[in-house]
Amino acid sequence: VTRAVAAGPGDTDSAAWVAGAVELAQAGDARALARLVSLVENGAAELRPVMKLLAPLTGRARVIGLTGAPGVGKSTVTGALVAACRGGGERVGVLAVDPTSPFSGGALLGDRVRMQGHATDPGVFIRSMATRGHLGGLSAAVPQALRVLDAAGCATVLVETVGVGQAEVEVASLADTTLVIVAPGMGDAIQAAKAGILEVADILVVNKSDKEGAQEAVRDLRTMVSMARRGEGDWKPPIMTTSAVTGEGISELAEKVDAHWSWLGSSGQRDARRRARAREEITAIAVAELRRRVGGLPGGAQLDDLAGRVAAGELDPFAAADELVAAASRGG
Amino acid sequence: VTRAVAAGPGDTDSAAWVAGAVELAQAGDARALARLVSLVENGAAELRPVMKLLAPLTGRARVIGLTGAPGVGKSTVTGALVAACRGGGERVGVLAVDPTSPFSGGALLGDRVRMQGHATDPGVFIRSMATRGHLGGLSAAVPQALRVLDAAGCATVLVETVGVGQAEVEVASLADTTLVIVAPGMGDAIQAAKAGILEVADILVVNKSDKEGAQEAVRDLRTMVSMARRGEGDWKPPIMTTSAVTGEGISELAEKVDAHWSWLGSSGQRDARRRARAREEITAIAVAELRRRVGGLPGGAQLDDLAGRVAAGELDPFAAADELVAAASRGG
Repeated sequence: VTRAVAAGPGDTDSAAWVAGAVELAQAGDARALARLVSLVENGAAELRPVMKLLAPLTGRARVIGLTGAPGVGKSTVTGALVAACRGGGERVGVLAVDPTSPFSGGALLGDRVRMQGHATDPGVFIRSMATRGHLGGLSAAVPQALRVLDAAGCATVLVETVGVGQAEVEVASLADTTLVIVAPGMGDAIQAAKAGILEVADILVVNKSDKEGAQEAVRDLRTMVSMARRGEGDWKPPIMTTSAVTGEGISELAEKVDAHWSWLGSSGQRDARRRARAREEITAIAVAELRRRVGGLPGGAQLDDLAGRVAAGELDPFAAADELVAAASRGG
Repeated sequence: VTRAVAAGPGDTDSAAWVAGAVELAQAGDARALARLVSLVENGAAELRPVMKLLAPLTGRARVIGLTGAPGVGKSTVTGALVAACRGGGERVGVLAVDPTSPFSGGALLGDRVRMQGHATDPGVFIRSMATRGHLGGLSAAVPQALRVLDAAGCATVLVETVGVGQAEVEVASLADTTLVIVAPGMGDAIQAAKAGILEVADILVVNKSDKEGAQEAVRDLRTMVSMARRGEGDWKPPIMTTSAVTGEGISELAEKVDAHWSWLGSSGQRDARRRARAREEITAIAVAELRRRVGGLPGGAQLDDLAGRVAAGELDPFAAADELVAAASRGG
């Protein structure tokens, strides 16, 4: 395995730089924190030593995932929850996981603009992360960025994702508490169920509760929650209504998030979820490495050749995959 | 590697059964086709011999992907396009990729109900596929189901997916032509851009064109399409308006789909896309096998142990992944 030469300091200096940056970040230095997150996002060569250094400092932050279809007001709810947490004085991190698009020339700034109310608060660290190009969506960089914010002393980290489907399941695997947000008139709750996202919700939020159709959305969600199989002592997702723009329902939502956090602790689910999260994280890194081998050294030309034969109907994809796996097991 | 014993016939009979089923399916027997797709969906032991047998029969079907947020009317557009294709007399397959949810007790039937107009047409094969549990979403079963429909003689296969984000990119990698569908008032085109899905569109469709906001949606999409970098001779995604319920705009859309198909042929992009599709397919199968090894034989208990140490901050996830990869390269 070759090692990319970092544009900055060498290995030894790098360790010292990282240690210094972590200390600064813990003291509240946003620039040091931002540089550490960038290092994670770029998958820099220093990533491994950084993660090694951070490991003993992690495991303290509470991670809240917020998800839902585009347009339901995730960012506004996130902003309102940040305010609620800051009222208690704790440091808060926000990761807005933002797919980039060539149509927009990069991650859109809308979310950050909407959270401008917190832009000048040194106790709030807000970061947009692009998922494009990261194998497996959230699975690569976001958990590492979470570790950075955790180690830097953020008591709560809010992870907001755009999209419906796979991304939600991934957020849920990262978060201690997952909020699924819907809005009236954005397609009904059936559509949310259809997208398979209700099942990952610890708390369901009907935002824009002043809009027409809010009560119908609540009723539909209630029906669907009641239909889910659930064991004795399991958490039953409450359905909260908010109008994040006016702030209505936000303190009740924050209380419910706290209640879920307490339940996680008393039920033993907090540790169980965190072990599951670590399993996911380790597996994702291992698979990415194996995938690199499959697409990598011996695979490049070989994969093109195999793909040509599969496209021509000369070979089936399973037989082709067998050849690749054999090569990956040798290579590395 | 142990081999699951099939509930049905043994290996030798199985090959004969598959050959017979393929022949029946090619003659238009929907039940034989359905059983072959089930075999793919269940990842049965016979999957490999089936795919080997089908390989030389594949590569003829035109694959059209339809995607967009929940509620934009994908199923209705799909149904209308099926009718347009059937007008030309060709056999049509529909794969509705449908995440299942414990809230609904399985794949929702809504789509199928909406396509009931075609339910009794023997020239149309409609199938809902659940993606849950399939590693990498669409990457596992859907391409194999496509191969089955292709080999069975469907001239066109429409693949409809729910969701925004990763799933769309996967559909685009499967399809010859990808339609991204938006609707007025479902969140504006900016939200679609935010979800990163515009970039995979070969054709953009504003459905429910009779609704308020349709012209704004067209205008926003036009702006975003014009902003995308594009080379000389590249395809510029047209923006079509439809009202799939009334049928308005559907024949124009079908013509545009044909025009894109012609362009794919004349530009050489058709072969290029199909080779890329084969590369994705092979890689996905290979990665699934490697992932099985990582989570599998030596990994099970080892992964739990590593996860416990990572959760406790004793180990960083990269170091843990190294141990797993080493084990996976030995195992198999």
